[in-house]
Amino acid sequence: MKTKPYRHKVLYRECDMMRVVNNSVYVGWMEDARVDALAQLGLNYNGMEENGFAGPVLSLSVDYKSSARFGDDVDITVSFDKYTGARLFLSYEMKDAATGRLLAAATSSHCFISLETGAPVLIKSYYPEWNAALLKASRPE
Amino acid sequence: MKTKPYRHKVLYRECDMMRVVNNSVYVGWMEDARVDALAQLGLNYNGMEENGFAGPVLSLSVDYKSSARFGDDVDITVSFDKYTGARLFLSYEMKDAATGRLLAAATSSHCFISLETGAPVLIKSYYPEWNAALLKASRPE
Amino acid sequence: MKTKPYRHKVLYRECDMMRVVNNSVYVGWMEDARVDALAQLGLNYNGMEENGFAGPVLSLSVDYKSSARFGDDVDITVSFDKYTGARLFLSYEMKDAATGRLLAAATSSHCFISLETGAPVLIKSYYPEWNAALLKASRPE
Amino acid sequence: MKTKPYRHKVLYRECDMMRVVNNSVYVGWMEDARVDALAQLGLNYNGMEENGFAGPVLSLSVDYKSSARFGDDVDITVSFDKYTGARLFLSYEMKDAATGRLLAAATSSHCFISLETGAPVLIKSYYPEWNAALLKASRPE
Repeated sequence: MKTKPYRHKVLYRECDMMRVVNNSVYVGWMEDARVDALAQLGLNYNGMEENGFAGPVLSLSVDYKSSARFGDDVDITVSFDKYTGARLFLSYEMKDAATGRLLAAATSSHCFISLETGAPVLIKSYYPEWNAALLKASRPE
Repeated sequence: MKTKPYRHKVLYRECDMMRVVNNSVYVGWMEDARVDALAQLGLNYNGMEENGFAGPVLSLSVDYKSSARFGDDVDITVSFDKYTGARLFLSYEMKDAATGRLLAAATSSHCFISLETGAPVLIKSYYPEWNAALLKASRPE
Repeated sequence: MKTKPYRHKVLYRECDMMRVVNNSVYVGWMEDARVDALAQLGLNYNGMEENGFAGPVLSLSVDYKSSARFGDDVDITVSFDKYTGARLFLSYEMKDAATGRLLAAATSSHCFISLETGAPVLIKSYYPEWNAALLKASRPE
Repeated sequence: MKTKPYRHKVLYRECDMMRVVNNSVYVGWMEDARVDALAQLGLNYNGMEENGFAGPVLSLSVDYKSSARFGDDVDITVSFDKYTGARLFLSYEMKDAATGRLLAAATSSHCFISLETGAPVLIKSYYPEWNAALLKASRPE
């Protein structure tokens, strides 16, 4: 399942001396879009942390396709590719909103841990609402 | 060839509500360590840009292994894995300086472009010093 | 003259271990809101830099009144307090959009310089459109 | 009392399209230098937060004097100007390490709060070590 795009207008301070968005900024955008995508499923980060668990990034990758520039509107679409109960796999498409041009394609994988112990948590047993929503979002269409 | 580690002390503002370094920060560190590694080869970013070319990131990946925390000293070792004349492939090991524990393993790939036209530049023809140093650094040991 | 508020939703990565927005982040928001406020006057940063001049920050101050937290909507209102032809003085009110609570009050002052020489430029002579719009925006109401 | 300068080498990603350090970056450096200055007094942020209190920024100001550029070494000296038991007032000098040129002069003021309740804490009663060190550092020389 793909969520509705998260829209971001490129900030002046996100661009470096090459006059384009610095490569590290895109990784921040992935997090911003992920928070928004989970909210679209009715799941919120604050609730997650209040419930005592978190979904840290295990790995990520970014392929940079073309440059984003100051003032551009960027649309970031998040896809819920796979959810195993223990791992969540997401992918991201970042496009120029005006032209549709692909700026970057990215992926991230996540586990779920207890904030208290740092140990893995069983989402299925302890957070059935999260489990149901992630299962539904990751179901092949 | 591996360069000498780039040492970074984790800043307060680099840590998020999970009380560990935010995932996006590591990607900034990769750039910082890359600048330092090139300087160890006698190559500097400023010189590159003054000469009118740049080596933007084409792709990157990060595997997060364990958490870095505020005040930790992190050692980042950059390896010059492969240089084709048109592409440069780097890998990164980020370790806790005190314990040697691996924090993250990462990769990046780069091309070389003219800052004026955005088109690929032939490093070999136009920047022989860069070409020689990157060839030497990327030679299998 | 006050411009229409610039709305920003607080990002996860903007909050530090104190679980509130890190103090340094507000200064980035000032720039973001300033870009937006100038656009409301029909003036854009890109155009400024394409015309070869810039309006760097000479000084700034921030008074932190209450904490912004992850997910909060923040409204930032920019006031054009004074424009002398050589200097521009702005002030900023940052409010929680939901409650109206004041989060921070801030100021910044700016000069205008040539990007080529770094020397002050006479806005009035060289950029009459900017001069007219800044005069109008800074006129006492 | 002035502490020994905190040395920072300007990063590529700290510079914006004006080819100088973005104004918001200096405010991050103030925090970095403050953490280092407190450590020089034997006081550490981690210990503070483990003890359940914090010293958030109440206000700050920055006067930008000249531009810092990519690769420059910057020395930041922190002065403990005044400590009242409830408030701490600091000032900062940021200088180019190579030339001694002043880049920026800044100030910050802080209170002390309980991390649990958010209410002010009496440093003198609850954290006598911090009180003694801050009193000593702020004593007129």
